[in-house]
Amino acid sequence: MYSIGLDFGTNSVRCVIVELESGEIVCESVANYPSGIDGVIIDDKNPHLARQNPSDWLICLEKVVKNAIKKGRKLKSFSEDKIVGIGVDTTGSTPLPVDENLTPLSFYDEFKNNPNAMAWLWKDHTSSDEAEEITELARKTRPHYLRKIGGVYSSEWFFSKLLHLARTDRKVFEKMATFIEFADYIPAVLCGIKNPKKVKRSICAAGHKALYHKEWGGLPDNEFLGNLDPLFKNIREKLYDEAYSAGKVAGYLCEEWAKKLKIPEKIPVSVGGFDAHFGAVGAGIKEGVLVKVIGTSTCDMMISKKVTDVPGVCGIFPDSIVPGYLGIEAGQSAVGDIFYWFVKRFMPDFVQNPYQYLMKKASKIKPGQTGLLCLDWHNGNRSILVDQKLTGLILGFTLNTKPEEVFRCLIEATGFGARRIIEQIEKYGVKIKEIIATGGIPEKNPLLMQIYSDIFGKEIKISDVPQTCATGAAIFGAIAGKYFKNVKVAQEKICKFKKFKYTPDFKNKKIYDKLYSLYKNLHDAFGTKNYRKSLYHVMKELLKIKDEVSFQ
Amino acid sequence: MYSIGLDFGTNSVRCVIVELESGEIVCESVANYPSGIDGVIIDDKNPHLARQNPSDWLICLEKVVKNAIKKGRKLKSFSEDKIVGIGVDTTGSTPLPVDENLTPLSFYDEFKNNPNAMAWLWKDHTSSDEAEEITELARKTRPHYLRKIGGVYSSEWFFSKLLHLARTDRKVFEKMATFIEFADYIPAVLCGIKNPKKVKRSICAAGHKALYHKEWGGLPDNEFLGNLDPLFKNIREKLYDEAYSAGKVAGYLCEEWAKKLKIPEKIPVSVGGFDAHFGAVGAGIKEGVLVKVIGTSTCDMMISKKVTDVPGVCGIFPDSIVPGYLGIEAGQSAVGDIFYWFVKRFMPDFVQNPYQYLMKKASKIKPGQTGLLCLDWHNGNRSILVDQKLTGLILGFTLNTKPEEVFRCLIEATGFGARRIIEQIEKYGVKIKEIIATGGIPEKNPLLMQIYSDIFGKEIKISDVPQTCATGAAIFGAIAGKYFKNVKVAQEKICKFKKFKYTPDFKNKKIYDKLYSLYKNLHDAFGTKNYRKSLYHVMKELLKIKDEVSFQ
Repeated sequence: MYSIGLDFGTNSVRCVIVELESGEIVCESVANYPSGIDGVIIDDKNPHLARQNPSDWLICLEKVVKNAIKKGRKLKSFSEDKIVGIGVDTTGSTPLPVDENLTPLSFYDEFKNNPNAMAWLWKDHTSSDEAEEITELARKTRPHYLRKIGGVYSSEWFFSKLLHLARTDRKVFEKMATFIEFADYIPAVLCGIKNPKKVKRSICAAGHKALYHKEWGGLPDNEFLGNLDPLFKNIREKLYDEAYSAGKVAGYLCEEWAKKLKIPEKIPVSVGGFDAHFGAVGAGIKEGVLVKVIGTSTCDMMISKKVTDVPGVCGIFPDSIVPGYLGIEAGQSAVGDIFYWFVKRFMPDFVQNPYQYLMKKASKIKPGQTGLLCLDWHNGNRSILVDQKLTGLILGFTLNTKPEEVFRCLIEATGFGARRIIEQIEKYGVKIKEIIATGGIPEKNPLLMQIYSDIFGKEIKISDVPQTCATGAAIFGAIAGKYFKNVKVAQEKICKFKKFKYTPDFKNKKIYDKLYSLYKNLHDAFGTKNYRKSLYHVMKELLKIKDEVSFQ
Repeated sequence: MYSIGLDFGTNSVRCVIVELESGEIVCESVANYPSGIDGVIIDDKNPHLARQNPSDWLICLEKVVKNAIKKGRKLKSFSEDKIVGIGVDTTGSTPLPVDENLTPLSFYDEFKNNPNAMAWLWKDHTSSDEAEEITELARKTRPHYLRKIGGVYSSEWFFSKLLHLARTDRKVFEKMATFIEFADYIPAVLCGIKNPKKVKRSICAAGHKALYHKEWGGLPDNEFLGNLDPLFKNIREKLYDEAYSAGKVAGYLCEEWAKKLKIPEKIPVSVGGFDAHFGAVGAGIKEGVLVKVIGTSTCDMMISKKVTDVPGVCGIFPDSIVPGYLGIEAGQSAVGDIFYWFVKRFMPDFVQNPYQYLMKKASKIKPGQTGLLCLDWHNGNRSILVDQKLTGLILGFTLNTKPEEVFRCLIEATGFGARRIIEQIEKYGVKIKEIIATGGIPEKNPLLMQIYSDIFGKEIKISDVPQTCATGAAIFGAIAGKYFKNVKVAQEKICKFKKFKYTPDFKNKKIYDKLYSLYKNLHDAFGTKNYRKSLYHVMKELLKIKDEVSFQ
């Protein structure tokens, strides 16, 4: 028997077919979004804007599934009627306005080129003022909302985006029948659901991004929303009251899409979820394990039976990652993106493969030897400051500073940012016994992995599942299809790890401890309101460490 | 009648012949030092080391004068016997150890490849520990020493270097008959002076770099020096008791060099001085005028009849720039060097002329629009913090930050650094009525000049003398040769200015005032011991200014 897993990323869609008895991925396919820059619609005049064209999703959905099935047909044991379920994950919070038939408003001629009628991609930052207002109002009138999301509502989330839409594009806002997450939209499309009220919304999107919690009866109440803006007075009518965990059945594959994809209709489709959460499941998340999805940005996830609120950790919600557990989510808003930015913008063009060149040179530098220290806030800080209005900082420049040194200090900075999150989670009582890394970076960047292990002082295992997110989606597809009883059983079959583990070098850790302490000084000085300590020692200690390390 | 001016820089020597009646430069020539990297001997293992081979100086001295004279001979009115004097300026503090015949120790076979036996170039920073010790001891026992040098003795200066030499290379130190400044060595060579006691030392080198002051009878006293280190107990015997101002006769051209240069012997040679000071004279320094020599680093100079001590301003000494006036000197340890570093290291190679490319792109950016802020301390801070152990900082990075934005923010940072010096000088009672810019940058970088004018809120005139330093040297040559009575009379003949002046745009100044206030926050937070204010606003205000300016 087989399950199909679909993973809708920022630039492309990936599809896997998993053979459930062996737990092996037997087919993979990828399709890149055709619009914008690698699928992202931007605005030259507004660097905060990042949108996506929902038609790209549908084009790619058809393409990837058909390609995967085509590959499947070449396998002896495969046949379409052995598909027990389909699972879907997407980026998030990436909501879009749709009409009463679930048609995206950007499909209308009148809104065709209007970015507000498209999907508001997770990394769209046009709504930072609204995020501040929501945080402010909640702080005054609903402090319990903030405790679940680490204290600050983000500009990347559902209600910030919806409020900005309401205020800046009344036409789209009024035409909209509902604002729906990407992760809810795709399963609904597959199942042919046309009525917004019939869509089973994902609890992971609802909880982590839309302040949904059983404790207060679902979404924020009408009074709170109305106080945000009179435009929001009746907004709950356009939204939803119930959310469902992944593995529950969202619906069954409709005739139209069964024909398009050339597979049987009525296959169960799981309730959707976010790529990172499904990736955590695909990577092997369980109690005591921190799963780090390291890519353009980073997502840190844990599950726990019982945990208090953790300030600055963006979400702690029941059932959001694995049903039956509280899901804990934190993250860094840019990791790979920072390296990409540096290489693309600042790396002299004299080498063929600048990444490889920098990696090789940076590997030869000892910890502390660059004399540089960086705050990895080029895209704001998601955890634990939850503040989009922060920016990157590098200090320690001399007239001898070389690109490979900056590159290494950028990697180290993301490691320090990651350590700050680990310390916060452990401080609030969740013990981390093991770290599993997955995502685009762990296999491509052994230097980063070793630096992280040294900075954390912890062993790091690497997932050996090629597409953890899509595989997580296939796991939930198989659960919806009743092939597996629960996540744990499925993971035992499917999750695998590389033999090689990264183990910390404690000599390096000692130096990184010193650098991390300086990192925290800068972190608190620029990122918190009440820091009043001197920074006079920072440059001097960096120079001292540099001298000590260089002449060793 | 004619005067020869010689300017020994970091990488090359320039020679001018000035026709004294018209005040015109009639010949110019240049010679590049053959050794090291552009004349600088470095050590891959020690980035602080920067030395120079004195044999380069002599090779180039012969070459530039001969070339200039060769050009002169083509002129109708010129003949060698019309040369009334020779003036010499050099970099400083660039001292070298010599033997009892004034032979550089690096000319000995046994010391040939020993950088300690060479000249210790001004930008050599191996002696920062010694600089701290000297400052510390003076603070405790001779506080009046520090008042003249802005409060801190620098690692770039004479006694720091001599103490480091004494401690790290006993052989060279013991062989040495005296430690002599570049600016004293070259006139002595030209005059054939072999006895170290007969060399007329420059008061500008002695005052600004060696704690020489009439107030306490010349160089620091034996007790102070002996307390620094027992090795210094009798060091004054190897040094000097008297120093002389430029324009005084150091001696007369000797037979040997007259033959080499093919000009008559016995031409008066002026007492030497530092390039920046002579440049200020060549540019037209007078009371109320700030002369900024803007090049790889920056030197800010004024003269005044009466001034109190200015904390953080590296020197205030009688007769050091213009005889009869107190010379005031401040500066920035890297300006052009920072741009060069950035372009060389980080500018992608896809353009033919990266400077021009960046300048063009950066010109189109409005003040505040980069969102970036930089501390221009890539080579430490000379004024007003006088602290070599500081490093460069850039903050405000986003994933959209472009090289031209960094380039512009580096220029702006040097402007803020310059404004901090201006404010300090004015605060202590020296009014700046006019700014004259000279050096390599003003003509090459109109963007920088306009940014400076906007940041200062002051008009800036550009000197139209092609080689201000060498011309200043020619002025002192002519004074030594008794053609001019004093500097003022000479300047009236020789100093000229471009018609175009930079005038401040007060709309830009308003934005720069805000950025400068943030710059000062960072400056004081990282550069002073007792700053205890929050920096939480810095990134946020930069983003706010960026948004305001971008959407204007």
